[in-house]
Amino acid sequence: MVDASPIDSRPIDFRTEPGRYKHWKLALEPGVAWLTLDVDEDGGLRPGYKLKLNSYDLGVDIELADAVQRLRFEHPEVGAVVIRSQRDRVFCSGANINMLGLSSHDHKVNFCKFTNETRLAIEDATENSGQSYICSINGIAAGGGYELALAADHIMLVDDGSSAVSLPELPLLAVLPGTGGLTRVSDKRKVRRDHADFFCTTEEGVKGKRAVDWRLVDEVVPGSKFEEAIATRAQEFAAKSSRNGRAQGVTLTPLTRTFSEHGVEYESLSVEFNRNGRIATIVLRGPPGMPPASADAMMALGAAFWPLKLARELDDAILNIRLNEFDVAAIVFKSFGDPGRVMAYEHFLDANKDHWLVSEIRHFWKRVLKRVDLTSRSLVTLIEPGSCFAGTLAELAFASDRSYMLLGTREGDNKPPAAIALAEANFGAYPMSNGLTRLGSRFIADAADLEQAKSERHKMLDAGHAQKLGLVTFALDDIDWDDEVRVFLEERASFSPDGLTGLEANLRFAGPETMESKIFARLTAWQNWIFQRPNAVGEEGALKRYGTGQQPVFDTRRV
Amino acid sequence: MVDASPIDSRPIDFRTEPGRYKHWKLALEPGVAWLTLDVDEDGGLRPGYKLKLNSYDLGVDIELADAVQRLRFEHPEVGAVVIRSQRDRVFCSGANINMLGLSSHDHKVNFCKFTNETRLAIEDATENSGQSYICSINGIAAGGGYELALAADHIMLVDDGSSAVSLPELPLLAVLPGTGGLTRVSDKRKVRRDHADFFCTTEEGVKGKRAVDWRLVDEVVPGSKFEEAIATRAQEFAAKSSRNGRAQGVTLTPLTRTFSEHGVEYESLSVEFNRNGRIATIVLRGPPGMPPASADAMMALGAAFWPLKLARELDDAILNIRLNEFDVAAIVFKSFGDPGRVMAYEHFLDANKDHWLVSEIRHFWKRVLKRVDLTSRSLVTLIEPGSCFAGTLAELAFASDRSYMLLGTREGDNKPPAAIALAEANFGAYPMSNGLTRLGSRFIADAADLEQAKSERHKMLDAGHAQKLGLVTFALDDIDWDDEVRVFLEERASFSPDGLTGLEANLRFAGPETMESKIFARLTAWQNWIFQRPNAVGEEGALKRYGTGQQPVFDTRRV
Repeated sequence: MVDASPIDSRPIDFRTEPGRYKHWKLALEPGVAWLTLDVDEDGGLRPGYKLKLNSYDLGVDIELADAVQRLRFEHPEVGAVVIRSQRDRVFCSGANINMLGLSSHDHKVNFCKFTNETRLAIEDATENSGQSYICSINGIAAGGGYELALAADHIMLVDDGSSAVSLPELPLLAVLPGTGGLTRVSDKRKVRRDHADFFCTTEEGVKGKRAVDWRLVDEVVPGSKFEEAIATRAQEFAAKSSRNGRAQGVTLTPLTRTFSEHGVEYESLSVEFNRNGRIATIVLRGPPGMPPASADAMMALGAAFWPLKLARELDDAILNIRLNEFDVAAIVFKSFGDPGRVMAYEHFLDANKDHWLVSEIRHFWKRVLKRVDLTSRSLVTLIEPGSCFAGTLAELAFASDRSYMLLGTREGDNKPPAAIALAEANFGAYPMSNGLTRLGSRFIADAADLEQAKSERHKMLDAGHAQKLGLVTFALDDIDWDDEVRVFLEERASFSPDGLTGLEANLRFAGPETMESKIFARLTAWQNWIFQRPNAVGEEGALKRYGTGQQPVFDTRRV
Repeated sequence: MVDASPIDSRPIDFRTEPGRYKHWKLALEPGVAWLTLDVDEDGGLRPGYKLKLNSYDLGVDIELADAVQRLRFEHPEVGAVVIRSQRDRVFCSGANINMLGLSSHDHKVNFCKFTNETRLAIEDATENSGQSYICSINGIAAGGGYELALAADHIMLVDDGSSAVSLPELPLLAVLPGTGGLTRVSDKRKVRRDHADFFCTTEEGVKGKRAVDWRLVDEVVPGSKFEEAIATRAQEFAAKSSRNGRAQGVTLTPLTRTFSEHGVEYESLSVEFNRNGRIATIVLRGPPGMPPASADAMMALGAAFWPLKLARELDDAILNIRLNEFDVAAIVFKSFGDPGRVMAYEHFLDANKDHWLVSEIRHFWKRVLKRVDLTSRSLVTLIEPGSCFAGTLAELAFASDRSYMLLGTREGDNKPPAAIALAEANFGAYPMSNGLTRLGSRFIADAADLEQAKSERHKMLDAGHAQKLGLVTFALDDIDWDDEVRVFLEERASFSPDGLTGLEANLRFAGPETMESKIFARLTAWQNWIFQRPNAVGEEGALKRYGTGQQPVFDTRRV
């Protein structure tokens, strides 16, 4: 096992923009965007591997995630997006094997998680933003390459006698398709299970008519007509789009952040690392003023509009902890600001809910909050005097494994007592990956508790009231607070990190499962297990021996 | 990692009966059965550990599973079952830690799987057999001890200031509660997630009023009134039972089986091991004659009634492969007999579906087929001339990862061409753990395919017809058969066993998830991962250091 690989030392930056892409080209025509994959072999995120045959590493996916996000905010005129390859006869050969072989377990697992979030963002754009994705497969789409196609709404494969889709991970590498592939095959494409079994154990994959008959692709097109068919299909999807094709976009200006020894400073939040205690504290700052007077004024603010800026900064902060700060055991959410102003923003967003930008901002917050749910660190929200956990921000308390709220005020402190407030958004705008709202999951035992909470929305709820409603875990007075919180955080840091990851992954998601939650639970957990097994990562394992000319040696016992 | 532990060498026998129990006492009074746990410390299944404080190993659970099964078949007069402890101040302290520390990964994983199946059998008895389980907790119910309680319909805890329920696995052992505990806490008991987080990270657990308020138990009763309250509650549940309290039971006579070098011979099936090829072939034999003339005649046959006998033998054969034959990569199902007679039995069971014994047999087959679904070996059904995959037996083809059916006859062979037939039972009696029938899962893409199959029930379907209906994976003629099947089985044996386990666990269960499927997918997969991690099983891991006085040392990176 390579669990402290030297290639994992440079911090990963999730910020990029089309002008800086190394691996993708984004081209726009009326109604249609063309996202072309042309991986720079030598442009890997880390040294030690070459990204041959349009294979990818996290860096390639960071650019894709950025493009998907920008298309929603910057190009509301786009109704269809075509993903295609610049290379002849190769669409994409999936995650780079040498990169996987060199990566630590924690990087591999978090790489898979991020790529899954990107695929889900593509599906979210199709479902909620009227931007349909079409995948144009002009050659080999293997492993993660086909998984990328699976995220599209419509998959087109050239029928040239050799181009095929495949998931060869199991036969070649002894691991599973790691980007949701198995779940999308069974639950999205609804491929019959025995066909899926054949497909996923066949290195060379499936092509031509069988690929359509087995539901693996939507259509196959002869090579001579392929380009024309793609263009036609793109125009058809664009014409059907709910986008009106005319709105002006909002530019996602570069995030500014400053790293110091002890933390990261953004415009609307701070991250503070207590490295001895293995704690990252994220302090979100409430809005500096009241919401803009109109939707036009909001458009004029663009990326500076507080709810959008905060969502982007929180997303970046979470990703930075996930991929660069593996030693953090717990994330503590705090906030500072006026909850009344936060509620004023909730009212503004509700009043303008049909505006495309407001819709995008709500959906973006939904995705950021899901990213929080899926972050494998203990989450706790501390609701103290002067805080502003209202509406959307209150979701962080409901996303946390526990929350603590201070009763009354602190001695010698003139900040107002802590209050939380519920808004419409807490009851529908932000479903978790299991399809329920966080309050719906929380109160799954008794719908009356949910109704009661709902009847108390738009009120400032003090700690006693919030506890009575079941909205916080513990309400503590000033005398007990410091000790209780300290003991909890020390305890959390003392437990097995793996045990906590598994515990939280189970307790956070009561109730139903969806394709999305199955990807992160069922599939990911099995993959994590396989990623640790000697048959994959041992010295004689398939992932280590791939490309060496040596066959892997397996422990044959079935577990 | 201890992956070839010497204590795992003796084959495990799943056959037992109350007269041979070492750890449980079964006592009967009108309407109520008392199942009393009194673990024999020195009666472990394997040497090397002592079963102190009513802790358990697989042997204790084999007896429990036997008792639950016998109560349904042998004691239809029982409407309520009380699970209790013989020991003062200790109900059950869960799975024995030393046993876990000494066990191989494959034994640990399969031990957890079997105990989960037993807990689900308890819940199935409550739901479908009118036998409600009441758990009487008179002291410490820790870890697997509380998980056993969670399987009951009603949990009663003595209120004596010290007795508590707890899931201390994470803080003490760095693993998860392995018998469905987390899922039952979140999805059955519907404990609020932050309460669950507190509970599952608190060694000493929760007692008294808080245990009720947090939904962890159903009632707490002062010590002085405890025995009386249990007896009263048992009578109440028995009185509410759908059982009429009078029917005569059927004795589950000892299974007879003969082991040879190459296989196991039962009365209605054979198991043949090809150890070089890593294949176990199970040949099921159809009924030796037509079904009995009446329900009374069926009762007179008792355990010799063909559908009951075959289910018991198949269950035993599967368990023997699971726990004693880890090197088997694939299970091949074959059958031999008259499909018309099998269909005659289907008609007999349908005609008598309101008879309690018929209902029990259908539910038992449901559980056996679920055991097949959850068996981590590649499953294939070979449907050849002379076979009888009809009705219930056809479910094995639908449970398989693939099926192959021979077109026409073999040269020089006078057996009739292969035919399969569908019965009512294929469309409802045997849901998988995801809540869907196997055909419903198979045809999840298009309900019309399911309807079409349904319209063809009660017909003998030849290979061409079966393939057209999508009921088999491949229909092959005599010329291709041997090579295709051989290549498939060789390929299966060549793949990574872990990869296949993960692949099959994902592809077999399309669509919805239930509490049951979440236990075997989400929870089990995380536990398998944790069971491999050095933080649990490494030399400095918590499972290894438990009881040594040394603290575990953790790799602090969160994955």
